[in-house]
Amino acid sequence: MCGIVGIVDAGGVSFPLYYALYALQHRGQESAGISTFEDRTLYTHKAQGLVAGVFNSQTLQDLQGNAGIGHVRYPTTGSKVPENVQPFNFRYRGLDLAIAHNGNLVNTAELREEYEHRGQIFCTTADTEIIGNIIADALRTSKSMEDAVLLCMRRLRGSYATVALLNNTVYAFRDPLGIKPLCIGKLDNGYIIASESVAIDALDGTFIRDVRPGELVRIDESGLTSTQIATANRKAYCIFEYVYFARADSVMDGTLVYDVRRRIGQKLYDANPVEADTACPVPDSGIAYAAGYAKRSGIPFIEGLMKNRYMGRTFIMPTQEQRERAVRIKLNTVRGNLKDKRVVLIDDSVVRGTTSRRIVNMIRDAGAEEIHLRVGSPPIIAPCYLGVDMPTRTELIASGKEVEAVRESVGATSLTYIPLEDLVEAIGCGEQNLCTGCLTGCYPVEINGERSCHCVVDYVAGTHQSDLSTFKAGKERT
Amino acid sequence: MCGIVGIVDAGGVSFPLYYALYALQHRGQESAGISTFEDRTLYTHKAQGLVAGVFNSQTLQDLQGNAGIGHVRYPTTGSKVPENVQPFNFRYRGLDLAIAHNGNLVNTAELREEYEHRGQIFCTTADTEIIGNIIADALRTSKSMEDAVLLCMRRLRGSYATVALLNNTVYAFRDPLGIKPLCIGKLDNGYIIASESVAIDALDGTFIRDVRPGELVRIDESGLTSTQIATANRKAYCIFEYVYFARADSVMDGTLVYDVRRRIGQKLYDANPVEADTACPVPDSGIAYAAGYAKRSGIPFIEGLMKNRYMGRTFIMPTQEQRERAVRIKLNTVRGNLKDKRVVLIDDSVVRGTTSRRIVNMIRDAGAEEIHLRVGSPPIIAPCYLGVDMPTRTELIASGKEVEAVRESVGATSLTYIPLEDLVEAIGCGEQNLCTGCLTGCYPVEINGERSCHCVVDYVAGTHQSDLSTFKAGKERT
Amino acid sequence: MCGIVGIVDAGGVSFPLYYALYALQHRGQESAGISTFEDRTLYTHKAQGLVAGVFNSQTLQDLQGNAGIGHVRYPTTGSKVPENVQPFNFRYRGLDLAIAHNGNLVNTAELREEYEHRGQIFCTTADTEIIGNIIADALRTSKSMEDAVLLCMRRLRGSYATVALLNNTVYAFRDPLGIKPLCIGKLDNGYIIASESVAIDALDGTFIRDVRPGELVRIDESGLTSTQIATANRKAYCIFEYVYFARADSVMDGTLVYDVRRRIGQKLYDANPVEADTACPVPDSGIAYAAGYAKRSGIPFIEGLMKNRYMGRTFIMPTQEQRERAVRIKLNTVRGNLKDKRVVLIDDSVVRGTTSRRIVNMIRDAGAEEIHLRVGSPPIIAPCYLGVDMPTRTELIASGKEVEAVRESVGATSLTYIPLEDLVEAIGCGEQNLCTGCLTGCYPVEINGERSCHCVVDYVAGTHQSDLSTFKAGKERT
Amino acid sequence: MCGIVGIVDAGGVSFPLYYALYALQHRGQESAGISTFEDRTLYTHKAQGLVAGVFNSQTLQDLQGNAGIGHVRYPTTGSKVPENVQPFNFRYRGLDLAIAHNGNLVNTAELREEYEHRGQIFCTTADTEIIGNIIADALRTSKSMEDAVLLCMRRLRGSYATVALLNNTVYAFRDPLGIKPLCIGKLDNGYIIASESVAIDALDGTFIRDVRPGELVRIDESGLTSTQIATANRKAYCIFEYVYFARADSVMDGTLVYDVRRRIGQKLYDANPVEADTACPVPDSGIAYAAGYAKRSGIPFIEGLMKNRYMGRTFIMPTQEQRERAVRIKLNTVRGNLKDKRVVLIDDSVVRGTTSRRIVNMIRDAGAEEIHLRVGSPPIIAPCYLGVDMPTRTELIASGKEVEAVRESVGATSLTYIPLEDLVEAIGCGEQNLCTGCLTGCYPVEINGERSCHCVVDYVAGTHQSDLSTFKAGKERT
Repeated sequence: MCGIVGIVDAGGVSFPLYYALYALQHRGQESAGISTFEDRTLYTHKAQGLVAGVFNSQTLQDLQGNAGIGHVRYPTTGSKVPENVQPFNFRYRGLDLAIAHNGNLVNTAELREEYEHRGQIFCTTADTEIIGNIIADALRTSKSMEDAVLLCMRRLRGSYATVALLNNTVYAFRDPLGIKPLCIGKLDNGYIIASESVAIDALDGTFIRDVRPGELVRIDESGLTSTQIATANRKAYCIFEYVYFARADSVMDGTLVYDVRRRIGQKLYDANPVEADTACPVPDSGIAYAAGYAKRSGIPFIEGLMKNRYMGRTFIMPTQEQRERAVRIKLNTVRGNLKDKRVVLIDDSVVRGTTSRRIVNMIRDAGAEEIHLRVGSPPIIAPCYLGVDMPTRTELIASGKEVEAVRESVGATSLTYIPLEDLVEAIGCGEQNLCTGCLTGCYPVEINGERSCHCVVDYVAGTHQSDLSTFKAGKERT
Repeated sequence: MCGIVGIVDAGGVSFPLYYALYALQHRGQESAGISTFEDRTLYTHKAQGLVAGVFNSQTLQDLQGNAGIGHVRYPTTGSKVPENVQPFNFRYRGLDLAIAHNGNLVNTAELREEYEHRGQIFCTTADTEIIGNIIADALRTSKSMEDAVLLCMRRLRGSYATVALLNNTVYAFRDPLGIKPLCIGKLDNGYIIASESVAIDALDGTFIRDVRPGELVRIDESGLTSTQIATANRKAYCIFEYVYFARADSVMDGTLVYDVRRRIGQKLYDANPVEADTACPVPDSGIAYAAGYAKRSGIPFIEGLMKNRYMGRTFIMPTQEQRERAVRIKLNTVRGNLKDKRVVLIDDSVVRGTTSRRIVNMIRDAGAEEIHLRVGSPPIIAPCYLGVDMPTRTELIASGKEVEAVRESVGATSLTYIPLEDLVEAIGCGEQNLCTGCLTGCYPVEINGERSCHCVVDYVAGTHQSDLSTFKAGKERT
Repeated sequence: MCGIVGIVDAGGVSFPLYYALYALQHRGQESAGISTFEDRTLYTHKAQGLVAGVFNSQTLQDLQGNAGIGHVRYPTTGSKVPENVQPFNFRYRGLDLAIAHNGNLVNTAELREEYEHRGQIFCTTADTEIIGNIIADALRTSKSMEDAVLLCMRRLRGSYATVALLNNTVYAFRDPLGIKPLCIGKLDNGYIIASESVAIDALDGTFIRDVRPGELVRIDESGLTSTQIATANRKAYCIFEYVYFARADSVMDGTLVYDVRRRIGQKLYDANPVEADTACPVPDSGIAYAAGYAKRSGIPFIEGLMKNRYMGRTFIMPTQEQRERAVRIKLNTVRGNLKDKRVVLIDDSVVRGTTSRRIVNMIRDAGAEEIHLRVGSPPIIAPCYLGVDMPTRTELIASGKEVEAVRESVGATSLTYIPLEDLVEAIGCGEQNLCTGCLTGCYPVEINGERSCHCVVDYVAGTHQSDLSTFKAGKERT
Repeated sequence: MCGIVGIVDAGGVSFPLYYALYALQHRGQESAGISTFEDRTLYTHKAQGLVAGVFNSQTLQDLQGNAGIGHVRYPTTGSKVPENVQPFNFRYRGLDLAIAHNGNLVNTAELREEYEHRGQIFCTTADTEIIGNIIADALRTSKSMEDAVLLCMRRLRGSYATVALLNNTVYAFRDPLGIKPLCIGKLDNGYIIASESVAIDALDGTFIRDVRPGELVRIDESGLTSTQIATANRKAYCIFEYVYFARADSVMDGTLVYDVRRRIGQKLYDANPVEADTACPVPDSGIAYAAGYAKRSGIPFIEGLMKNRYMGRTFIMPTQEQRERAVRIKLNTVRGNLKDKRVVLIDDSVVRGTTSRRIVNMIRDAGAEEIHLRVGSPPIIAPCYLGVDMPTRTELIASGKEVEAVRESVGATSLTYIPLEDLVEAIGCGEQNLCTGCLTGCYPVEINGERSCHCVVDYVAGTHQSDLSTFKAGKERT
């Protein structure tokens, strides 16, 4: 899971990209990078670390130009190699291309094999390099980005929200199923494309609309144009963006994430009403859930857990033996809000079960009489191949275990997961438009050894259509 | 405003002090320091920066010993000099003394004059140095810490929650009015004294009780003993600890801070009921207020503002001209939760008014129909001389301005401050036991040019009384 | 100009590579990197900075394996991009290749064009990437490294001392003219290949011999083997390695650099004897020159300039206006050794003339009566295309200017450059075996718009020959 | 051993102080600090680290004012506590005093005892604090700095070259025996006082003269004045400043250090002529010795050891077991200059003998036939109590061991120390004016349990005398 952004703005883009990446920091804390272009030169600065650590005034001033892209990267296992830090740059006959990508391909090995067979040598192990190679290779022969992206959409299998900087033009495209989010905003003197609308907000821009699945958007100094490259008979929006990953203040594919989470909270009560004294969120994402739960149930919203905000990279954790009891260095119980109380504890998900067990224990130690764990997502029973860093099946507590067994394992008085249909309803776009792979084991793209739902993708002979007409000034959202 | 901690523990104290300081980090981000003692040597490590930046594994291992004290310091104007970083060390005839202090003296100049007259040369401009000098000077003649602290209490005017390390014994005392908080906890193999109970929680310790105003507590390897040095006819707990400064999960002088804030929220509704769609907190302290407000009013708790958690020291802020609109880099509006809504916006305080004005503007920009600002403290009309970093009278928006004028200035539809009597009731200890100087202009200690309430302090001929008898094992709190 | 090293050692290679790079630090202070291989994994750590800053204990421990290569990079204009930091990694069908390179190609553009035409997309602008691509591309079809390097030698035009790590084997090769240095050493449990013999010394290894121009050396756990890939009718050792670049304690292509410099000093006296009081070196490289000059002339070696050793990266230089007079912050005059003295000032080269002028001024200010500047290289009249970062022709003070004009410009009493034939004699391998491009304008490889000397390179059908037989134990040097 | 500097200059002093401290960096690498004064405010910035690391442009700009002092500190055992970082500040009744000190007192304990008895509480364990207290205490009663310094000179026993900043005036004084160096320079718009003349050179200033033993110098915006506070019947210049500690380009108490070292080299040959092939210095201080030795003997100066200049603080040294053989990471042999040669190896001193042994071994390993070790100081047989960090008697190889036994221990073919009378002659000021405590065991100040030479100090009734008259413009040196 990563965050991406592309900006064209007449007033320079490095500072806006910096603020946009900062707004997307929750999507990746492992590394950050920016590429800009001016006067035949591609500038890139990227390194491991948080946005505020990677860049300083000088590095931002050195990133000249009115067009650029940026990236923040999530630390996935085994991939902390500096060479995987994005954006990636590609050079080909005087052409300068930079690419940043959010998502995960499932046919990388196959594609690399093919391109290696044709002679391409790769520098890294990252998905992004194969995307860049397909594009640059296509540009080599046809010179049209539309064709290049069409080729990508035909060949890439998996999720790929992508921004590309080709000279002083920014391109953005999203896989035909729209698995990863991407949206468009208007700035005072240009446009922004970003993973989430909060990046637009950070620049005081105006949200226009989401990039459509299968769409290629192009922004340069003359404005924004769009081409529909492919259309599918369904969408496959990642359900976990709504449940956990996205910021609550983001509007994603037409829906405010906060609203989804409040509705989930309401439905969690409806599905299994319980008498209790407090509706207590697990911070941070649980707060919207608990707000919805409290509203519906009449059980007051009261925090029973407080998070310490000052945890930094260099913080020394207690030694292994002390670790179990030392969760509270990060997360403290508000004893007075829990003691002798019947507590509804509302969390977004239960993955391995270890964190839930520790939290339930802490709350019980604080004197809670009953702990009713309510979970904002159905049981996770299968891995994600499309960009969310999830454990293997054997590590998933819900994989092959009944709810009652999970409840006992985490030590709660009662445990209810939200039913899938309720979750789908809370999101509002229909199950056929969501990727529910981790919840059902059935994936919207073909994956070796897994079941897959049937998708039909139609490739359009790209006809340009200006978006400018569809966007009528003002601050409305579609 | 600072955070202090003292620990005696048979298993070494540097790591526990580190975690305790981390739990108190909200009380001071400017600098951090630890002093420990072992085998005739006083070890000190202190520097500017956050706890996680100042210490590493090596520096903590070098801080040997089973007794020590720690400090985090709040950045007050003009005092970012490294030499003011605490703990302070004092050496006198083979005696090693370290002192850390939370509070502010109002007669420093007078005391320095006197001690300088007697020949003392000072190294810094900090209050802490005069406290250390009085103690060391007293120890020089009488050798009893009780007498030294008695002298302090007779001479020091102001607030002073203090921990001292004298060889391998930790002492802690609190001014006779108890202006600044200080509490005692039991650890597996020792005791802890800290500004707030959350530091005890972080070590999985058991809260025993608060240090009493005017009390001197002594902890060493043989246990904890206490002497009442002075008693006053009232207390003067800082009212702003409850309103804003303390962590909501702290229990302070018998009361859970979260409870106080929820009660304030309830009373804010009662004092001025309004019809509205959402009860929206200003993060972070506003959440407890809004929870209470929502419970009482039935108006649902819904967040309309989201805070970005990744702001670091090196974050580059937008230039001055962009600053007004760029508040949202730190604080974003959840447009969907505000648009066309009647919003009750609940904040802890209004000081200069600038922040409130910006937030009200942002919420209005997000489409709110009405914005009812509810403030968890009465108008601040006078400066604080006792340790809270407040602006001068002329900068305080409520100083010499009617509520209506303030409302107009910040741009809210309506504005209600909590009445002082309601706030006092929410805290529960009676107005005579609170310092309300900044709200009333009447201070519990004599301050040149200000009104002062009458306090009588009685100095006890110190009789030792072991606390160990009063603390009966188990995990109860008094 | 860069430094490279490759090591195979049964006891692990990351620490030996670290020490070897540290010994080669003078060859490049811009960035440093190491790649190692173990158990199907290629590990790389590289970053901008000095060796001691780029690596720490943890990063070295993470670089597992018994085979690896390393690189330090010289800051050449406009190339401070992180992506150019070496070693470079290449991936191709399960094959992991890392490459580090010292030198400069003159036909990069042409080669890139060709490979791009065949479909290769490049990630960087560095020469090293084209070398890696040629090799990986060749391995793709033929599977033999000998053939791949043969292809390199046929196609690459320029200087290239290269180390490559292919799985757990280290390969090293040197261009057929041997422009850049490369030598072989024996370690207790393996072998080392490095730019200079000082890297072998740092590991207490035994120098075996130089890598021959056109030779490919292969080291793995079973030992060292060699193949002569190409032979030329001459060598073209970079003359500036002897004059300035190499460490004086290195033995390079059979000759101790210190000896060369002492002989230059002697010849400088012979060529133009002068009566004087002191032979004064410009530190650091001038010391060996002055030692030789003093020996021959009988004029005592006395330092008149002292260098401050503590200059770090973050040192703040005086502002531009003060700069002229502030050279002495780095380089101070020893007034008492200069006052009223006839000084022979011995430096390695005069490039732009600015530094020489400042130094001559300082010495005159210190009271010297006469300043006889003796220069250890002939006038530099042409650029270097083969790896030394030199200014353009117009910036070279000696380009199109008589010696007398240069003397006047730098302000010396007299000025003598060493005649080329003397310099060649001091080195000892014959002018036909040296690259004298910057001194004569005639280059050993074809360069557009420049004169070139005739070279014939013969490509051998590679026959393997074990080096082990040619290296008879003991600590002798050939 | 430390470096100190004081500057008054109409153009601001923080940058000049920075460059001066940088020139004195060899006198202390542990910490650095600067205090300046402007408009009733004393500014101090100080921290552990090298000058270039402790300060940056911002911190220097914040150090406002036209008067200031600076300090670099040598890492002496057990004293790496941040609180000992100088300058020290003292506050007393509106007076701001900063002090920096080079030297060591031998009656600190006694003085602290006395001042503690009178009520003074100390903050640190440093000598500097007692000096500051004596001065501030005296100023408190008499208001005259002359009296305060007179008191210091009566009471302090030991070495103390001191600079003090009292408001916007810089004072400097030197103990009556002048044990530590201190000299005066003229700047364009002010004056500088510094430990060594190289600091004056770094600012392009003009050396005036040394501060006289027992003299108090005062510089402010109106110029420089001087008072002779005390006179003694002898001097006691630290002999090791000439042998090892000072920079060779410093002029110290009338003598160029480089000259002293060359003369030592000459006398080393005269004292024990030997036939040999090369005169080889141990870098860095050995170079001047070897230059003198070569001149007298006719044996050519040739370096057989090369030092790696890039060693930084974070450099990872080989593990203990490899350490013996890994000296050459720092210091490499130039094998070709040593093989089959009779080598005269010239070093400044032999302390514990371990370093000498390693170097002799390395040179023998490089193939030297004979190694004649010549040492620029007589055997060190006693500790230094006056500021040089020396080991205890039992660690000194020459303490209680014959020369022949030392020779055998270090493994040299022959070993000659310079006779004390030759060393004294090389320095030129007479043995009665040098401190030779470490060489003779007889000290110029009374030290418990040691022999002491008889000194008589006379305290002058301070008569002001302007130095301005004695310094006649121009760039001459007295």
